[in-house]
Amino acid sequence: MSYAMSALIQLTQAGEVVVKARGMAIGRAVDVAEIVTKRLGNGQFRVKDIGINTEVVGEGAEMRNVSSIEIVVGK
Amino acid sequence: MSYAMSALIQLTQAGEVVVKARGMAIGRAVDVAEIVTKRLGNGQFRVKDIGINTEVVGEGAEMRNVSSIEIVVGK
Repeated sequence: MSYAMSALIQLTQAGEVVVKARGMAIGRAVDVAEIVTKRLGNGQFRVKDIGINTEVVGEGAEMRNVSSIEIVVGK
Repeated sequence: MSYAMSALIQLTQAGEVVVKARGMAIGRAVDVAEIVTKRLGNGQFRVKDIGINTEVVGEGAEMRNVSSIEIVVGK
């Protein structure tokens, strides 16, 4: 919920926020976007764009692919 | 990986697949879409649309909101 509050603060100040997450946290990024648009935002904000990607994290033998998401929320 | 194989089979047969997930499984849906478009699909397929939503699951005192995702993959 603190992520949602932070996103809401940025939204009211800047008019747009990009919620980003990788791997296991992707579900939480979706939660934040949903909470901000449907519950906290008083109908002022909407999901404008969603992108997914694959990032390489770690080095050498630890190197692996991790999915990521970027959700643009704005007016 | 078996989800990715299933998605690839449907893609080659029907030309389109919608990968859906709720809650904790949302990250896995993104993995499936990324694997199919970037690794298995030989560059033939792309993410055409991504939508997120909130669903109510459970009944009575167990009722709660869960985020969901739908990723449309096609040619």
